[in-house]
Amino acid sequence: METPALILDIDRLSANAERMLTHCADLGITLRPHVKTPKSVDVARLATGGRMSTITVSTLAEAEHFARAGFTDILYAVGITPNKFARACRIGPGLMLAVDSVEMAVALAESDLPNPVLIEIDCGEHRGGLPVTDPALEQIARALGPQFEGIMSHAGHAYATDDLAMVRQTALAEADAARQAADRLRKGGLAVPTVSIGSTPTVLHARNLNGITELRAGIYLFCDLSQAGRNICGFDDIALTVLATVIGHNRAAGVLTVDAGALAMSKDIGAEAHLPDAGYGWLCDPVTLAPLGLSIKVVHQEHGTVPVRDPGAYDRLPIGSMVRILPVHACLTAAGGHGQYHLTDGRIWPRVDGWT
Amino acid sequence: METPALILDIDRLSANAERMLTHCADLGITLRPHVKTPKSVDVARLATGGRMSTITVSTLAEAEHFARAGFTDILYAVGITPNKFARACRIGPGLMLAVDSVEMAVALAESDLPNPVLIEIDCGEHRGGLPVTDPALEQIARALGPQFEGIMSHAGHAYATDDLAMVRQTALAEADAARQAADRLRKGGLAVPTVSIGSTPTVLHARNLNGITELRAGIYLFCDLSQAGRNICGFDDIALTVLATVIGHNRAAGVLTVDAGALAMSKDIGAEAHLPDAGYGWLCDPVTLAPLGLSIKVVHQEHGTVPVRDPGAYDRLPIGSMVRILPVHACLTAAGGHGQYHLTDGRIWPRVDGWT
Repeated sequence: METPALILDIDRLSANAERMLTHCADLGITLRPHVKTPKSVDVARLATGGRMSTITVSTLAEAEHFARAGFTDILYAVGITPNKFARACRIGPGLMLAVDSVEMAVALAESDLPNPVLIEIDCGEHRGGLPVTDPALEQIARALGPQFEGIMSHAGHAYATDDLAMVRQTALAEADAARQAADRLRKGGLAVPTVSIGSTPTVLHARNLNGITELRAGIYLFCDLSQAGRNICGFDDIALTVLATVIGHNRAAGVLTVDAGALAMSKDIGAEAHLPDAGYGWLCDPVTLAPLGLSIKVVHQEHGTVPVRDPGAYDRLPIGSMVRILPVHACLTAAGGHGQYHLTDGRIWPRVDGWT
Repeated sequence: METPALILDIDRLSANAERMLTHCADLGITLRPHVKTPKSVDVARLATGGRMSTITVSTLAEAEHFARAGFTDILYAVGITPNKFARACRIGPGLMLAVDSVEMAVALAESDLPNPVLIEIDCGEHRGGLPVTDPALEQIARALGPQFEGIMSHAGHAYATDDLAMVRQTALAEADAARQAADRLRKGGLAVPTVSIGSTPTVLHARNLNGITELRAGIYLFCDLSQAGRNICGFDDIALTVLATVIGHNRAAGVLTVDAGALAMSKDIGAEAHLPDAGYGWLCDPVTLAPLGLSIKVVHQEHGTVPVRDPGAYDRLPIGSMVRILPVHACLTAAGGHGQYHLTDGRIWPRVDGWT
């Protein structure tokens, strides 16, 4: 088989999808999987338990792709701007939008867009969103008029820790913030049907989410070293690996090289904060997935350089032999240009990459 | 215009291509542009001065694409392994290969592949390649027999400094190493027609390269903050930018967000070593390209978060307004899923991404 190639373990993927569906069903809250991780209709079908509805996307290209495949109720969870109105309009009213400013609410209300809209609040990540106490919240909801659908938040700051007690605390704080925002608007006489929160760590480890109507998460489907290193999942839950070939031994320099570099793996080193030897990925046995005690420490576009301390590794991994590499950040690894998944049962599933 | 989108300044690109062609002509050495940066037939046509020959690629998908477009004499500069022999064979004898081990030389000799082969030496980067003094060098050349074509090296370690005197020293050392390897083989009675070295910094700043037959470089075509921060090019030489839209103001957190994140920009922060405020890219005026004193400091998949110290920036960059962002590492930014270039003269040029 030619390399590099994305390998998707269908058993692990199915178990990850199932576990989250069960967890959300136990919580009594709708799961709205974020398909920016898999960018695959086939994976999204598993993630929704065959429902093919209520998903989250991060680009309008994804929204179009999933709508065309028959998915309904698609949330584009990135702030919309007027240069994207025409395309959003073509996708139709099954696309839900997000805003966090009066300007965009007014622009939406003045446009012909029929789409429902969530208002994003900032529950501590400090990326998008309004503070819960911001008076603009009500202004936006009123400007949106009948398009106003509810509140959304994203607790991306849950990744700052590997302490699950703190993750649970962040989840509760996120739910509190979203509920508080919804309650403020309800007190003003507005209907707030949707209260949407989420991130893989907070959703997986949250309890007692009264008042929340839906949960968003994506990376739980594949998992990766960033998740496992933060105790959010187990290493055995990682469903996505990169199949790579050993293309060189540089014994004099004490390294071997694989044909998985910055594009095949991504340049994310976000796992190292909690897993110091993560590098750009762990090399594993291609069949058993047992870690080999080797990781990619330098990447160039198509080269991954792996320091070798035990010279026996050169014999165990001759040039031309294959490894499977656990990724640091599955979303970015999968988006690196692979274009498709090779499933462990032999099937090939396509992806929708890019913005056009 | 929808964003994010790659914008390619045709005047800067043409000047960059022309300058390198002239420089190599002055040195009297063939330029073999590395098209892993642009992954575009149109750019490669400029890079070769219309010659459409003697290029370098980093994947067999690129090799196929350029061969199909009529390019001849294509060097696949990544170590070949048997799982890629069949595909290399289909591309034909116009594809030159690289090896750095006796095992692969023997495997190639035993295969039906007619391709010429370079032996890679390690001139200090410590990625691929053999030490110049390694006795395997001659063994490999003899194992390759008539397929043996010459020597190649890559001085990627030239990026460790922003001191051009040191870059020149690295270039001379690289040329010395390649010449020394070629001379050793010639003393053993072997013909060594090709001695190929290169990296953008060493090629751009090298002088006196007697005995070198060709120079490889790619990123000089686009340039980026990593290059400019190392004084390898000027900021005004950067031909590639990402057009992005301001999608949110989070005044409470002191940030604004743009719709260019980890995929549109890449997660490379390699410019910060020599340009501490580079982050994931500098925001510039979309027309004049004047830097705005703002840079992306946090990226998520589709969000770039930009710290704002002067609140006037929110007024100058209202939600919905556009910026052009100077990339940290043009090769990776361009490969992030954009799929095409929007030229400043209105044309659209496609790219060949991925491995399939």
